[in-house]
Amino acid sequence: MTRVAVIGGGQLARMMAPAATAMGVTLRVLVESADAAAALAAHEVVVGLPGDAQAVAALLAQPRPDALTWEHEHIPDSVMEAAEQAGVPARPGGHALLYARDKIEMRSRLEGLGLPIPAWRPVVTSEDVAQFLAAHGGVAVLKTARGGYDGKGVRIVRDSAEAEDWLAQAREGGPQLLIEQKVAYDREVAIQVARRPSGQVKVWPLVESIQQDGVCAQVIAPAPRLSDGLQAEAERIAVTIATQLDVTGALAVELFEVDGHLLVNELAMRPHNSGHWSIEGAVTSQFEQHLRAVLDWPLGDTATLAPVTVMANILGGSRQDLTQAWPGIGDPGAKVHLYGKQVRPGRKVGHVTVCGDDADQARSRAVAVAQWIANGGTA
Amino acid sequence: MTRVAVIGGGQLARMMAPAATAMGVTLRVLVESADAAAALAAHEVVVGLPGDAQAVAALLAQPRPDALTWEHEHIPDSVMEAAEQAGVPARPGGHALLYARDKIEMRSRLEGLGLPIPAWRPVVTSEDVAQFLAAHGGVAVLKTARGGYDGKGVRIVRDSAEAEDWLAQAREGGPQLLIEQKVAYDREVAIQVARRPSGQVKVWPLVESIQQDGVCAQVIAPAPRLSDGLQAEAERIAVTIATQLDVTGALAVELFEVDGHLLVNELAMRPHNSGHWSIEGAVTSQFEQHLRAVLDWPLGDTATLAPVTVMANILGGSRQDLTQAWPGIGDPGAKVHLYGKQVRPGRKVGHVTVCGDDADQARSRAVAVAQWIANGGTA
Repeated sequence: MTRVAVIGGGQLARMMAPAATAMGVTLRVLVESADAAAALAAHEVVVGLPGDAQAVAALLAQPRPDALTWEHEHIPDSVMEAAEQAGVPARPGGHALLYARDKIEMRSRLEGLGLPIPAWRPVVTSEDVAQFLAAHGGVAVLKTARGGYDGKGVRIVRDSAEAEDWLAQAREGGPQLLIEQKVAYDREVAIQVARRPSGQVKVWPLVESIQQDGVCAQVIAPAPRLSDGLQAEAERIAVTIATQLDVTGALAVELFEVDGHLLVNELAMRPHNSGHWSIEGAVTSQFEQHLRAVLDWPLGDTATLAPVTVMANILGGSRQDLTQAWPGIGDPGAKVHLYGKQVRPGRKVGHVTVCGDDADQARSRAVAVAQWIANGGTA
Repeated sequence: MTRVAVIGGGQLARMMAPAATAMGVTLRVLVESADAAAALAAHEVVVGLPGDAQAVAALLAQPRPDALTWEHEHIPDSVMEAAEQAGVPARPGGHALLYARDKIEMRSRLEGLGLPIPAWRPVVTSEDVAQFLAAHGGVAVLKTARGGYDGKGVRIVRDSAEAEDWLAQAREGGPQLLIEQKVAYDREVAIQVARRPSGQVKVWPLVESIQQDGVCAQVIAPAPRLSDGLQAEAERIAVTIATQLDVTGALAVELFEVDGHLLVNELAMRPHNSGHWSIEGAVTSQFEQHLRAVLDWPLGDTATLAPVTVMANILGGSRQDLTQAWPGIGDPGAKVHLYGKQVRPGRKVGHVTVCGDDADQARSRAVAVAQWIANGGTA
């Protein structure tokens, strides 16, 4: 039987489980705790951290997985070495994953490929920051090269003094820093692609990602007013990155749209929040496709199933047991996904997807159900 | 957290797991063996038979399930009593399940409700059989009242002598027998309905079920050339049965279509092979709907997502590890479901679903992939 090992116990690993069950694939997951979101849903569970050699050995033990993958980028080199010794292909491999883990490496590489990215530079001193600010209108975005997500590790700066604490941390061994142009974008968009080791790629349509407080709030697929030209440009960027960086599995490229053109913002080499819509909205979901890709199986059709699909995240609110919201869900066409996570304010604890003919209508329906689930009567 | 207990380790319980994972519901399953189809996929697993009081106690133990349901009709009364003592609602209840378990009870009840069924009678003696044959053109269908499925417990008879061995078994305590008219039907069709304890019902479209050797081979949803009148008649029958028999959860009604009218053939009070198409083909699948119904949650939309959806069963053939078929699946739009069961000749070990615009085309695609998976190069 075919088996895939996954590192990470969050909702991304959890949502691989239904796809694996359908495909007859056994999913073995390394989770950080027995009550992690992925633990109940996975077929085989190992509890431990990726830095724990014994846990990684159990993840790779007989019956040997056919591939090893992850739901996040924070994979120590020791895991790559253990996989190589065990003869289990790591997908994406460490040489690709580096570019999802380190924003300085990524931007250097994309620049080298001639792909459009915002103006940027690595920064070490206050002077570096001050020079960049002076050259870019007095405002810029400071980022840690590693470890940032959902608005963490990102800061708007208007004066080099505002960078001083992070610069000091970097000098003391903390994450390296980069600074980049604050792009006056028209909207944030994203595109998913999946690539097999043998080279086949499949792309989904470009989607619009609506952020609130630095966190993805809703995704509209395809992005409204999507021209053939913009889709082609997004595909060219995504396929170039997947191919040139030798990505295997799912790749999400987050982009800024400015005056009808695209700039690459971030990469994620795994299923991504901007692709959850594909569970109901596409013939093949990003979770099924990721498993097919890391197994080097033929990729599935990425055609959409509805004129528009909208996903709204459920962020932790006043309700604790989200399943108690079910009896009051009044929209029979809303597809609800709950992650089984401990509810904390603002934490992504589920999502709601609505397919329809009209983006605004689908969006307001998805948001209404997501808010009801999070907050019940207090919404 | 919300929890549903299920009895049965086959593919029907297995396919409830992805729906439960999405909904944030914990699925605890009583499986007959640790390698049952449902065991890997379920969230919590108890190994044992429904007649084993200790296993049933573990299934109903704390944290207490919110509902108890099943994937087959062979539920001993002891389970109903244990559920009642534990305060766990059994859905469907024993009073309803009786009609899915016993064809004599079912036909008597449906007749009493004025629903259309083939001419029939219970039989005890050879004389009973001979009389029925004489009154119905010399050919009829003999059935065991209990325990039959997939062509088992069903026999065509043209002479009372052909019934003698089953009649003798019935006299010695074996299953009671009934005989019924061999209907010259135009096609076999089926309709699914789901009903909540509080009364809400939702119906899917009537589907055509194509049988080969007494086993469902393919299902076309909706049934080709489906008139509004036939759909309305099917809905009236299904809703009457669900309501009058107090069915909770999913109900499948298998029917014969004869000259544009319907006759009820069989009932199943659970997700059913004729409803697998709904995983990809409808907004709400029969598995999600069954869980919503047994939890008394609002039912989901049953609208179709494509002009036509065809499901083809994968019957056990020459290939043993079906996941080895994946690299050779050349149809990127086919949705493949493998059940993780031991392969035996003719056993239902998976299914393939194709959505499309044309029934013949979708059917030949689904059949081609199903045959490839079963037999590989020998197809």
